[in-house]
Amino acid sequence: MVTRTVDLRSDTVTKPTEAMRAAMASADVDDDVLGADPTAQRFEEEMARIMGKEAALFVPSGTMGNLISVLVHCEIRGSEVIMGDNSHIHVYENGGIATIGGVHPKTVENNPDGTMDIDRIEAAIRHPNGALYYPTTRLICLENTHANCGGRCISADYTDRVGELARKHGLKLHIDGARIFNASVALGVPVHRLVQAADSVSVCMSKGLGAPVGSVIVGTKEFITKAKRLRKTLGGGMRQIGILCAAAFVALQENIVKLEDDHRKAKIFADGLKEIKQFRVNASSVETNMVFFDVADPSVISPVSLCETLGKFGVLAMPTSSTSLRVVIHFQISEGDIHYALTCIKQAIQEIVAVGIAK
Amino acid sequence: MVTRTVDLRSDTVTKPTEAMRAAMASADVDDDVLGADPTAQRFEEEMARIMGKEAALFVPSGTMGNLISVLVHCEIRGSEVIMGDNSHIHVYENGGIATIGGVHPKTVENNPDGTMDIDRIEAAIRHPNGALYYPTTRLICLENTHANCGGRCISADYTDRVGELARKHGLKLHIDGARIFNASVALGVPVHRLVQAADSVSVCMSKGLGAPVGSVIVGTKEFITKAKRLRKTLGGGMRQIGILCAAAFVALQENIVKLEDDHRKAKIFADGLKEIKQFRVNASSVETNMVFFDVADPSVISPVSLCETLGKFGVLAMPTSSTSLRVVIHFQISEGDIHYALTCIKQAIQEIVAVGIAK
Amino acid sequence: MVTRTVDLRSDTVTKPTEAMRAAMASADVDDDVLGADPTAQRFEEEMARIMGKEAALFVPSGTMGNLISVLVHCEIRGSEVIMGDNSHIHVYENGGIATIGGVHPKTVENNPDGTMDIDRIEAAIRHPNGALYYPTTRLICLENTHANCGGRCISADYTDRVGELARKHGLKLHIDGARIFNASVALGVPVHRLVQAADSVSVCMSKGLGAPVGSVIVGTKEFITKAKRLRKTLGGGMRQIGILCAAAFVALQENIVKLEDDHRKAKIFADGLKEIKQFRVNASSVETNMVFFDVADPSVISPVSLCETLGKFGVLAMPTSSTSLRVVIHFQISEGDIHYALTCIKQAIQEIVAVGIAK
Amino acid sequence: MVTRTVDLRSDTVTKPTEAMRAAMASADVDDDVLGADPTAQRFEEEMARIMGKEAALFVPSGTMGNLISVLVHCEIRGSEVIMGDNSHIHVYENGGIATIGGVHPKTVENNPDGTMDIDRIEAAIRHPNGALYYPTTRLICLENTHANCGGRCISADYTDRVGELARKHGLKLHIDGARIFNASVALGVPVHRLVQAADSVSVCMSKGLGAPVGSVIVGTKEFITKAKRLRKTLGGGMRQIGILCAAAFVALQENIVKLEDDHRKAKIFADGLKEIKQFRVNASSVETNMVFFDVADPSVISPVSLCETLGKFGVLAMPTSSTSLRVVIHFQISEGDIHYALTCIKQAIQEIVAVGIAK
Repeated sequence: MVTRTVDLRSDTVTKPTEAMRAAMASADVDDDVLGADPTAQRFEEEMARIMGKEAALFVPSGTMGNLISVLVHCEIRGSEVIMGDNSHIHVYENGGIATIGGVHPKTVENNPDGTMDIDRIEAAIRHPNGALYYPTTRLICLENTHANCGGRCISADYTDRVGELARKHGLKLHIDGARIFNASVALGVPVHRLVQAADSVSVCMSKGLGAPVGSVIVGTKEFITKAKRLRKTLGGGMRQIGILCAAAFVALQENIVKLEDDHRKAKIFADGLKEIKQFRVNASSVETNMVFFDVADPSVISPVSLCETLGKFGVLAMPTSSTSLRVVIHFQISEGDIHYALTCIKQAIQEIVAVGIAK
Repeated sequence: MVTRTVDLRSDTVTKPTEAMRAAMASADVDDDVLGADPTAQRFEEEMARIMGKEAALFVPSGTMGNLISVLVHCEIRGSEVIMGDNSHIHVYENGGIATIGGVHPKTVENNPDGTMDIDRIEAAIRHPNGALYYPTTRLICLENTHANCGGRCISADYTDRVGELARKHGLKLHIDGARIFNASVALGVPVHRLVQAADSVSVCMSKGLGAPVGSVIVGTKEFITKAKRLRKTLGGGMRQIGILCAAAFVALQENIVKLEDDHRKAKIFADGLKEIKQFRVNASSVETNMVFFDVADPSVISPVSLCETLGKFGVLAMPTSSTSLRVVIHFQISEGDIHYALTCIKQAIQEIVAVGIAK
Repeated sequence: MVTRTVDLRSDTVTKPTEAMRAAMASADVDDDVLGADPTAQRFEEEMARIMGKEAALFVPSGTMGNLISVLVHCEIRGSEVIMGDNSHIHVYENGGIATIGGVHPKTVENNPDGTMDIDRIEAAIRHPNGALYYPTTRLICLENTHANCGGRCISADYTDRVGELARKHGLKLHIDGARIFNASVALGVPVHRLVQAADSVSVCMSKGLGAPVGSVIVGTKEFITKAKRLRKTLGGGMRQIGILCAAAFVALQENIVKLEDDHRKAKIFADGLKEIKQFRVNASSVETNMVFFDVADPSVISPVSLCETLGKFGVLAMPTSSTSLRVVIHFQISEGDIHYALTCIKQAIQEIVAVGIAK
Repeated sequence: MVTRTVDLRSDTVTKPTEAMRAAMASADVDDDVLGADPTAQRFEEEMARIMGKEAALFVPSGTMGNLISVLVHCEIRGSEVIMGDNSHIHVYENGGIATIGGVHPKTVENNPDGTMDIDRIEAAIRHPNGALYYPTTRLICLENTHANCGGRCISADYTDRVGELARKHGLKLHIDGARIFNASVALGVPVHRLVQAADSVSVCMSKGLGAPVGSVIVGTKEFITKAKRLRKTLGGGMRQIGILCAAAFVALQENIVKLEDDHRKAKIFADGLKEIKQFRVNASSVETNMVFFDVADPSVISPVSLCETLGKFGVLAMPTSSTSLRVVIHFQISEGDIHYALTCIKQAIQEIVAVGIAK
């Protein structure tokens, strides 16, 4: 019988705090589709200010934030976008940019640190007056932190260089910044500086920041005007969203300061895993709130069987391949939870090994 | 100086009640994208039950509800959908089914009561083995109540006959039931009976029912499984939506019973308008919470100038063409508000006429 | 046993003449995808000159010509096009502009003469800065001659007025001129004058002009540059097309002059049909090479049964609805064929009536 | 002044032979859109027989053949296709499957021999009941010969293994067989055996086989029925195509036997290039009619400058990157042409080097 739950699958599982609930209960709201919700307006203005861009737009999810951004930059039929082969947009968003938007993805290999070689990006660019059988590159996408590359941070310097490349070729730069605040905290660089070179950024309020629902996209006023129309097309125009924006406001005020501690706890987790001989973990690559690790011998302990056994103890983790797993730390995971989870992991390994021997 | 606001533009402007705010503040929530939000699950089960369908799905908006429904039924490239030329999906949803989904719309003229002649629907059907140059009809859409046809109700009998036609030709039937509860109350027919013939229905919680955000689509389990994937593709998958579902739950409990009174107040409004000689209003066509009326001489009083002048009194209405306007009543509009609005309208007419004579 | 075939289904059945075959056999050709086919270049230059536009492009079919034209003018996602509800693009091209191009069609009722009321076109226009839930109108399409409206001609004056409307609203005008040479001949107006107001025109070489394969689109150089890329995307880029262009060249030289005679023969056919009491035919509406007629009592003689019975005599016609048929005349139908077909029609009626009585 | 032209850019530049011209001049034709062209029917039947499939369809180009095939197999919205990152469909077809079809491409690295590691293909597959954020893999594409991998041949054994993988996962297998006859001849394996595992194949008639226009796709009857409708949607339905099919028929009879000699001449070319110290060429990789080679020092001799200088001698070649070129041999390139081209290349190098030193 489970008496304690430690959900390490994602920081999307964070639940609204008391302060958020209070804010939602008293939020001043109106019809945002008619452009009248005061809390939404204040929140969008604040997000634009924080991100250093002209304007912002609240959207139901990070997936919609990325989808709208790519589609606005690629509004002309026959557009191609360059992105990492391990990027969230390419791997985890249903191929929506192609399925829904008819935008052709051109992937470049992600390095283990989440970057792509700038030479390889440049080699992939195809110009509007190029061969008749080429689509036209109109956008480069980065991801910061890069989830599939261990939650690692992309530096301002690298981002600037990609921005320079984009401008040189008349392209736009979008950053999937679902966890950009984690990168900002880990790098010690203000978030507006980190995304200075970008034409648009999507930021998630409902991951480590703990808001119940919502992401934000930022960019120029013209970009946001087009984004608003596209949000309506996709069905992301919602009515009294001041409710959700009020919670997101609290998320900004309360929880950005907690991210540094999330990263510290992730390192503790990684250090704990290092001592388990059945795992391979590169603790030095843990830069933010994610820990990826490999099982040494998947024929003995497979990620799926480990997660199942852990589930009986109330510890929830996620396999990411046939040989690897990830855990994600957030402010509602305490240091005690981490030690509990590590203990459960050791016990689960013993159980799995014992069953294996018994066979 | 405006001291009183009576917003008659739409029932989407309803604000969450105290009970809704309390429900949101205490809702039991979890990550709905991971399928774990208990309040969302209970709400979806309740909506499925009420609507008499196997399953339900919460979506951010009615536009997304309709978009997903059409795209699920028309999942095969080359699909055509038959709908009224005045339908909300065709006129007010950015052409999303074509723009985003590649579905070809085939319109049939809406009668003034919101129906389409069944013979004309049948004549518009094109079969999968038809001529090589024809797309394949896969869906018929109805709208109930029909907003652009004065908020009039579509009867169960008519709906059944369209459903029969659909089945005869192997088509699906979707109902845009944004205001289906208004139709149910006005007709005195349970809502599940009204939509019995439909394969899917979208229902709005944030119009006359007053919830801050959200719509629901209902259908078979298979339909909802596909809809869930498409909701994710569009970016409508949200995290702790129990917050919003808790408010929607209250909307069901508190506000369905108030719709009858909304309809009564709409008739009072229509009767009041009938006495103003500058208007033409067919009070007998006011079946629910909407009142459409024409100006007798747009060269004297145009809808736009009337709305502008009314705005100074804090009375907000919406022109629907160069000769007509609409007002929409909801539970946050009192009988007093209606009399106030009628008084303001008369005063506005006097002002406009006076200015016209002065010229 | 059929000893003589008179195929009246369409002017698309015309077969290449000896002169065309000779021209194809000796054409100077090269790889047109590499921009090197000399015959294609000469033909495209000649067509641009005849149509009074800057440039031209050979395409495999009229459907592709229309599809490319609409997609070039509507290259931005979220575009809407206004066209007649009876237009070929809307009814007979698989809904390709939506299915393939994501362009939303907005139909306006076609008058019996193939025009649309200009007021109704204007009322249908939606501007880029309009309501958030509106797509943006970017194009108006006309059809000349209008096939589904009896092959009737659209005048230069009407076309000019639609062009003026389009420019006033910043829209483009495309003409589906599959049979624009028929209109030119019937109206006695040079074809370049007829399409003067249009930004693009598609013209078919393989209908009454008799070429085996191909259509042409004309417009500005910029339009054709974009069209060429899109032709490649759709798979319409072909290699040694000088073969086909050589035949099309002959079609221009040989067969435009024959169209007037086609129209004369169509009138003879219509006059013959008028004398058959089982039909209703409006001979005065026969302006070009098409004759549409209704059966007086479809319960006695249905178009399908009539066509089947006629087929036994080698006379091929096409039902266009449950009460009507059409025949299309071209230069390979002689006056003798027409009298033969009329005789067969009378005989077929007798047979059908006799069988009906026997039952 | 150019007195002799040797066009080595592609085998698409082949011109129709006298026999083809004669066949076109006398072809028995009718309206293929109405299903009536006898030569098209005979040709399609013959191609189906040769390829060992149920049915075939003539299409205007290889690009359309591939586009239709991918779209038929991926007719359901949300489909993903696995293909080589160097494949023609991914690199040279305007991203049409995404732009036009909304199909999401998932690339796997092509090995130098044109294959993809089967483990990597399998790892890329995503099932219809997989995670909500995954598109559904429905198709694998191979290319044989593989143009971007030096025209190398894919073996029957490898193809069979990919076919087995596809069936195991419920996927389809399409082969872009633009030059499948080259592979068949080079491998000494009948073409039907080479594509036995495939659900569809596109084959080009206007490359090494010399027909002026056209490709063919083959598959089951059901596949071809769907393909025919899609061909019409794309605008690839053409009228009297017996003209083109007659030439393609001759291509089959005349020119398949010549491919072996093309391969022999390509090897001569490669051997000649090997002796030029400014080049790097792997002659053993020349399996069919293509020769790719690198310049040793692009700062001295760049592919672009080499091609420009060669152009003055009437020798046309194509740069494929900033360091490499390709030449393609076909039956209208004689052994004499090859020696002439090699001589011109040497002379061009001397000129370029001399100019470089003079600077």
